[in-house]
Amino acid sequence: MKKDTDSKSHPDLVADWERLFRVFIRPEGQASRATLIKYMDRILYGLNDFLKKHVGITEAVSLKELSQNFTDTIISDHPEKKLTDVISCLIKEIAPYAVNVASPYFVGHMTSAIPFFMVHLKTIIAALNQNVVKIETSKIVSVVEKQVIAKIHRMIYDQTESFYQAHVQNTETTLGVFVEGGTTANLTALWAARNAKFPPKKGFNGIETEGVVAAYQAYDIDRCVVLVSRLGHYSLRKTVGVLGIGNQNIIPLSTDENNQVDINALKKTIARLKKENPKICILAIIGIAGATETGTVDPLEELATISAKHNTHFHVDAAWGGPTLFSQKYKHLLKGIHLADSVTVDGHKQFYMPMSCGMLYLKNPKALDVIAYHAKYVNREGSVDLGIKTLSGSREANSLILDSALKIMGAKGYALLIDHGIETAAAFAKEIKKRKLFQLITPPVLNILTYRICPAKIQKKLDTASVAQREKICHQLNQVNRRLQRIQREAGFSFVSRTTLKLKTSPKNSSVVLRSVIMNPMTTITILNEILDEQEKIFNTQLKGLLE
Amino acid sequence: MKKDTDSKSHPDLVADWERLFRVFIRPEGQASRATLIKYMDRILYGLNDFLKKHVGITEAVSLKELSQNFTDTIISDHPEKKLTDVISCLIKEIAPYAVNVASPYFVGHMTSAIPFFMVHLKTIIAALNQNVVKIETSKIVSVVEKQVIAKIHRMIYDQTESFYQAHVQNTETTLGVFVEGGTTANLTALWAARNAKFPPKKGFNGIETEGVVAAYQAYDIDRCVVLVSRLGHYSLRKTVGVLGIGNQNIIPLSTDENNQVDINALKKTIARLKKENPKICILAIIGIAGATETGTVDPLEELATISAKHNTHFHVDAAWGGPTLFSQKYKHLLKGIHLADSVTVDGHKQFYMPMSCGMLYLKNPKALDVIAYHAKYVNREGSVDLGIKTLSGSREANSLILDSALKIMGAKGYALLIDHGIETAAAFAKEIKKRKLFQLITPPVLNILTYRICPAKIQKKLDTASVAQREKICHQLNQVNRRLQRIQREAGFSFVSRTTLKLKTSPKNSSVVLRSVIMNPMTTITILNEILDEQEKIFNTQLKGLLE
Repeated sequence: MKKDTDSKSHPDLVADWERLFRVFIRPEGQASRATLIKYMDRILYGLNDFLKKHVGITEAVSLKELSQNFTDTIISDHPEKKLTDVISCLIKEIAPYAVNVASPYFVGHMTSAIPFFMVHLKTIIAALNQNVVKIETSKIVSVVEKQVIAKIHRMIYDQTESFYQAHVQNTETTLGVFVEGGTTANLTALWAARNAKFPPKKGFNGIETEGVVAAYQAYDIDRCVVLVSRLGHYSLRKTVGVLGIGNQNIIPLSTDENNQVDINALKKTIARLKKENPKICILAIIGIAGATETGTVDPLEELATISAKHNTHFHVDAAWGGPTLFSQKYKHLLKGIHLADSVTVDGHKQFYMPMSCGMLYLKNPKALDVIAYHAKYVNREGSVDLGIKTLSGSREANSLILDSALKIMGAKGYALLIDHGIETAAAFAKEIKKRKLFQLITPPVLNILTYRICPAKIQKKLDTASVAQREKICHQLNQVNRRLQRIQREAGFSFVSRTTLKLKTSPKNSSVVLRSVIMNPMTTITILNEILDEQEKIFNTQLKGLLE
Repeated sequence: MKKDTDSKSHPDLVADWERLFRVFIRPEGQASRATLIKYMDRILYGLNDFLKKHVGITEAVSLKELSQNFTDTIISDHPEKKLTDVISCLIKEIAPYAVNVASPYFVGHMTSAIPFFMVHLKTIIAALNQNVVKIETSKIVSVVEKQVIAKIHRMIYDQTESFYQAHVQNTETTLGVFVEGGTTANLTALWAARNAKFPPKKGFNGIETEGVVAAYQAYDIDRCVVLVSRLGHYSLRKTVGVLGIGNQNIIPLSTDENNQVDINALKKTIARLKKENPKICILAIIGIAGATETGTVDPLEELATISAKHNTHFHVDAAWGGPTLFSQKYKHLLKGIHLADSVTVDGHKQFYMPMSCGMLYLKNPKALDVIAYHAKYVNREGSVDLGIKTLSGSREANSLILDSALKIMGAKGYALLIDHGIETAAAFAKEIKKRKLFQLITPPVLNILTYRICPAKIQKKLDTASVAQREKICHQLNQVNRRLQRIQREAGFSFVSRTTLKLKTSPKNSSVVLRSVIMNPMTTITILNEILDEQEKIFNTQLKGLLE
């Protein structure tokens, strides 16, 4: 590939006012218009055609090699390129080395194809360039945002019509907020939980004002903990670290054979923690609806009951699984989600929105009052500015995309996608079981499963082997699966991801497993079989020797 | 306007697989392609033409009235609209009631027109839909991001070529990070500063792991403070609140007659704090490069010296002012910025990028190691994944937009915008001084100024009046200016914002002032004079009576 710096000097291009005006005032003449529209044609179809020709995931060029072409650290004084050249460069020189996440063979991560109308919608919000931090830079968009938030809130919490009429456009209350992504949503939830646990009282102005040290003193607490399954997303540790609680106070709970949080373990842990330290505060209990690694869903109703008993904030991380609620067939899998004090959902996951969009929903419409901030020039007290109760300041109008997408898809449209993912994952699990080379590790509940190369013969061996033998085999299997995943990824035709799980047969070590996320409606069982075929071929030609 | 619910049922639209496939697979036939491109035409030009016809800022419909039309909280089962209808609706029913931030008469906030190529670039990143949290969903885009970060780092810090060759593609080091916006950038800076101040040591695993309480104990500290001018952005309070330090520990410093932080006040405050409490820790000193309200720049060199003396993190919030460095004529205004440990810059402000994009730059390429997080399925230890050292997880590829914009504009192109803003603001200040009805409150240093209606006669009176008389006059002036701003905003032809400042003539009360931000290159002195004319007219016809 061409070095990025080669293209640097462009003798005709100078920075001057005339040129500057041309890029700000959209060209008026029909010819100029046609040119700019042609650019969109190239963006929409040039890019698409190019990626289609390169059916794979990405070009087989190593990252190291790529990075050597991007070492120019000086901004050129004069323009280097016209828009048309930039677009050509992005299509021809960047896209082939980016990752074709839209490929139906890309089933390794929670990033996938998005409906093409999403690109049009993103274009509209860029062209409008509203800033939703305040009414003065968004006006009706803030109103639309409140409405679409109420719609998703209703899907989750299903309150009465009069509840929604009271809150949908209420400027004093907040049913939910749009945020950058799942991490920020989780952070916002725990931030609110923290502040609610240590509110102002006589002689104490609240934890947000006085800090964690003063708060613990004021309430005679000496430790806060957050309880979540060991399958909880890593962002939870991060958020607790940021909030000053200390990330060691995320207490990972063991899971049962279905990869759901072990309710007995939870109860015992709470009892033990309270016994060990009467000054402990259980800040929150978190349920997962769609675990990142296994797609599993915790028993939300039971978690809600325990949370209520201990007067603890109950948060559900449904960043992945939330949109399952669209499906009449499968929404029962999230039973009890309406009991959560707060729920994280990601727009760029199963709402199929472009990067990046997260949301947090609240049972209590006043729950975010404890994180409100005002200023004299924005978010004034009593104003309807949506930035009052968000971590972020300036923020794009992703709500317009979601609002439009709901209208274009309908709940049933989204349900088709959800059903397809769940059912294709189930079919894929069957296929894996059928093949002697593979072992299904975590069967899918939603549309995520894990498996690994582990020939039937070795599976049997594991059943009877000594501990030492098992660990040796596990080590070999890990090597095989790690290398398999890398070889397949680097070949560039298809992509599954990998993670490590603790398995019964090797409780001491982590076992490397392959992970599939089936969200692209173009991903069929035929394609998944091709992926397995490729893996078998790689194993038989390159990796067999590693297993004795 | 039409109620949003009116359009609900659309008899022809059903959610089915055929339709679903059509929205995922881009149409292959020439006719379908042409249709989709026509949609882009409407987005780019339909929207633009519409807004041009409505020259003003927004339609004069009250928020309350608008919000009454958006109270439908049920997601419809079947599709309500086709893409074409959604686009029409957005253009005809949403855009007119949104805010025309691209109008050259919209000079009230830090949101403005963006070059039209930015919309194309945003479209490209939506179509590619890379997720920069990890290499496996972005590959080359992560490499491009590292390069463009090095370019901006070099503009700020101007290190040697060998420094940049050592770091530009170094997977172990981090010159900067892309974040959601200025708030997240400031949060990341103070998060890193906090963690660096309380690192692991014997018997203590560091503040991120153990929390604020254990950290203070381990280091025998009982209070952390952050020092910043009283003109510091409100997000700073928020970040310190989030981090568990307590937002009362943002210590606002007084400013001098130029609205720069008062260096003597800073020195005295530090001395006082240390004397009062030997266990205090000065976590950070923050300099502002482009204050939100006044556009002023703190004496960064002096702040750096004081920070170094007290071994304190020196952060510069250049969310607004950073791109002034493009201008050879005015970059001296930010003298000393290269001495900062960290620098916040916003992409969606003076880089003219679409909402929303922030960045944080670090002097020490290892400074963000203290906020690194890993997981088994992403951001593995030793990987080059860019998500390791960011607050966010999934994140869109805004770096591609900035990289392309730098190539299209060149440093000199951006410099033209910066120079225009600064020089037009200076000319505007002259005009305000010339007019007897107005008083210039804070003259512009960069491209922001504040002023108010305060007739020359009253200005004179204020010089000689008693304290009680002054307060009375100030109260009247506040009323006039507050109402003026609202009337002008609601009329919808032009927009200035308002804030409150402490003025010498009324030190007890806050004085309402009008605030202008000149960043749109289409905003000329002629337009600014029209805005003043309109204000004079509003005053003379509606508000005169309020002054005596």
